[in-house]
Amino acid sequence: MRPRSGGFRRAVLPALAVTPLPADAPRRRIAYDPRNPLARPFASQLGAFRSGTSTPRAFLEECLDTLTRDEPAIAAFVTLGLDAARASADAATARWREGRPLSLVDGMPIAVKDMIETIDMPTQMNSPIFAGWQSRRDAACVAAMRQAGAVIVGKSVTTEFACGNSGPTRNPYDSARTPGGSSSGSAASVGAGMVSMGFGTQTHGSTIRPAGYCGAYGLKPSLGALHTGGLAPLGPTLDHLGIIAASLEDAWTSAKAIASIAGGTPPHPGMRGPMETPAALRPATLVRLNTLGWAETPASSQAAFEAAVSAIAAAGVTILDASNDAGVAALEAELARIDDYATDLLAWESRAALGAYRAHGDHMVGARVHDLLERAAGMDTARYERGLAGRQRLRDLVAGFAGRVQGFVMLSSSGPAIADHAYTGSRNYALPWTMVAAPSISLPLLVDQELPLGLQIAGFAEGDAETCAIGAWLRDTLLKH
Amino acid sequence: MRPRSGGFRRAVLPALAVTPLPADAPRRRIAYDPRNPLARPFASQLGAFRSGTSTPRAFLEECLDTLTRDEPAIAAFVTLGLDAARASADAATARWREGRPLSLVDGMPIAVKDMIETIDMPTQMNSPIFAGWQSRRDAACVAAMRQAGAVIVGKSVTTEFACGNSGPTRNPYDSARTPGGSSSGSAASVGAGMVSMGFGTQTHGSTIRPAGYCGAYGLKPSLGALHTGGLAPLGPTLDHLGIIAASLEDAWTSAKAIASIAGGTPPHPGMRGPMETPAALRPATLVRLNTLGWAETPASSQAAFEAAVSAIAAAGVTILDASNDAGVAALEAELARIDDYATDLLAWESRAALGAYRAHGDHMVGARVHDLLERAAGMDTARYERGLAGRQRLRDLVAGFAGRVQGFVMLSSSGPAIADHAYTGSRNYALPWTMVAAPSISLPLLVDQELPLGLQIAGFAEGDAETCAIGAWLRDTLLKH
Repeated sequence: MRPRSGGFRRAVLPALAVTPLPADAPRRRIAYDPRNPLARPFASQLGAFRSGTSTPRAFLEECLDTLTRDEPAIAAFVTLGLDAARASADAATARWREGRPLSLVDGMPIAVKDMIETIDMPTQMNSPIFAGWQSRRDAACVAAMRQAGAVIVGKSVTTEFACGNSGPTRNPYDSARTPGGSSSGSAASVGAGMVSMGFGTQTHGSTIRPAGYCGAYGLKPSLGALHTGGLAPLGPTLDHLGIIAASLEDAWTSAKAIASIAGGTPPHPGMRGPMETPAALRPATLVRLNTLGWAETPASSQAAFEAAVSAIAAAGVTILDASNDAGVAALEAELARIDDYATDLLAWESRAALGAYRAHGDHMVGARVHDLLERAAGMDTARYERGLAGRQRLRDLVAGFAGRVQGFVMLSSSGPAIADHAYTGSRNYALPWTMVAAPSISLPLLVDQELPLGLQIAGFAEGDAETCAIGAWLRDTLLKH
Repeated sequence: MRPRSGGFRRAVLPALAVTPLPADAPRRRIAYDPRNPLARPFASQLGAFRSGTSTPRAFLEECLDTLTRDEPAIAAFVTLGLDAARASADAATARWREGRPLSLVDGMPIAVKDMIETIDMPTQMNSPIFAGWQSRRDAACVAAMRQAGAVIVGKSVTTEFACGNSGPTRNPYDSARTPGGSSSGSAASVGAGMVSMGFGTQTHGSTIRPAGYCGAYGLKPSLGALHTGGLAPLGPTLDHLGIIAASLEDAWTSAKAIASIAGGTPPHPGMRGPMETPAALRPATLVRLNTLGWAETPASSQAAFEAAVSAIAAAGVTILDASNDAGVAALEAELARIDDYATDLLAWESRAALGAYRAHGDHMVGARVHDLLERAAGMDTARYERGLAGRQRLRDLVAGFAGRVQGFVMLSSSGPAIADHAYTGSRNYALPWTMVAAPSISLPLLVDQELPLGLQIAGFAEGDAETCAIGAWLRDTLLKH
């Protein structure tokens, strides 16, 4: 799996099962420090690019040094395009030197989740069905980031069709643990410092959870706010393009570059807000949520979250929760039952795509794909419509908090990354905001068992900028301690 | 272009320009008779299949005889799969013999517009960019029709990306004329009697117009009512799957087979209505519309339409029009200005896909693709949102007629097929119902200059079954004379 130094490495996927790393591979274990993560922010380089003390090419080489050293243990990429990446970085270097960068992400090294089509590399979706398969277009988000000057390093590992069998990727902080899924490779490559941003997708929990597991920032914007054209569809009313990044600034400027060039998924005009990352904003009131995930969260992670909530309250924010607010209690009650209808919605909406893949043969798709198709086969239109109604009820409940509170705070996952490579973790903390269609951000601010633990801030539909501003305040406040 | 008798003919597209038929090809000219069209209905065979006096295989061979004779002059197909088609027809034959057909379309020979992905044939979109390109899945509609037992004869010619340069296809009633676009090959193959149904798509006018030009029935269902998964996207909020068929029954049963198996585009649950074609229903009141197309319609076509409206009125239907109803006058006024915002919506929404294609090189896409991209480049979010608002205004105007009238009647096109192969005709009659998202059906009931002229009946969103029932009544009433 060692990347060649140039050209495309086009790994044709060997099998559906998790590819074990060599048995003699030493266990990689690095204690997470949120003030000194492995992730390599791009935004903090812009001053050096402007002053000429660094360049996008020099920054890329730092990333590639890490990639060359760590990729054998992490296996974040399925395809690399290093010659093209270096050429792009050189072009960005020339633009910064001339004082005419294309955007705030000009020269940013990025990874493209292998569910997303690229004109110059295969899109294989961790499925033997798509081994070596070549699209002939860039997805809207890829085209936009290219136009903004970003440097595409390669295609990052996904779980099978973003819902099935896991890939070979390991967590950058502990190679015995999952990086999360389905955006496994993007989260691991960003968390490890190989790139500053990786595209994720989120249909249930696939951006927020892996970002939290890998010590990266994860942005799931308002539904439709970033164009999903060229992403292999799973659940058309659930699929979000997600951004996993080394800093909140990298996440925001990437999302805005896409929104300003490609727009949103029609008819959404595209994510609202300024091109520059919104300044930190202290909220007056936040809702603290436990969600269905609390019961499965280890006590040590619960304690880390409680400490964060206490620090937020100590900084002057009023905290509402199910014990002191009837509206929150009602919301928690609804969140306790979303799993069933969320899975119904996914099963029903994904059956067209997954069924077409299974047509290649039952043995060509994994067990989870079969499970989703079986569930859909047992459904009827009325049950799908009940799922839609449930989701609308949840959206209405959340919208009812507008004006009273500025956001919702909870964990990003049920504890830190689990010591499993086949299971990518529970989505119980991420699922609510996928369903609500409102923005949420995973902030890599907490630590449990020396591993990254994400804190999630969510807001109201179309309030992406406000949610980002609160996220910046949470970061500044919690890292101060 | 002569098809081989078996296996796939995989024509790799040579160039963007219209491919001229051989100079010595005799002009094909057949007078259209709506009571005795070339089109070959499948539904009328079901009794013979049940009684054993015919079989799907025998019916397919009739279709293939026509195809073998006429395809050189019509050029409806880009890829044929005749061995597979015969095997499918044999399987359907066995099922009918056992009295256990899979559906009302079991054994129906169909054509798949080459904008729609198939697991077993290339999808080339009349673009050199996609020459020989192979998807690895069936589109939702293809998978559904296969599951219902349909016999896929081949991939039918489209204009470039369903919006650009025309293909080689000729009108089956006059080879000097266009079959219409972008569903050129599907309309021509159905109109000529090579298949009983062909998939179309309609983003502006691409199902209703070619169906009308070629003497076929065209069904554009309610927006989202038939799953668009696996159709190359053009305008995501405009794209409809369309059905072009040899009879109203063939159109309805095909659409219901798809809706019942694949559902609609999420969150639409799928086209409502019975599996069997709704019985003819006489409406109490219809609105007669001229639309923006009237001024460009030749007097002879206007006369054919006036005669039809008179016959409808004589059969007891109250006709409202702009001269006797203020609501209709307001609707006509809005219809006179939809072209501008409809084109804005298309340009803005298609820029992601078309821009990604143009990335292959400016010379790799045609002039109309460039024009759309140029228009989008001159737009901003506010202008797109004005387009959305205009469309909503039109939808509200039409919805205001609910309860007062049962449908809207107008031509399907500005006269019969024009004598041009590069230009596929005006979409001014088809565009309104694409924008409104309500169902419309082109009925091949009128004749002008010995050519087919479509009569269009449109209804209210989700009222597909009612619109079909009125279409059946119009057919029965107008063919009686």
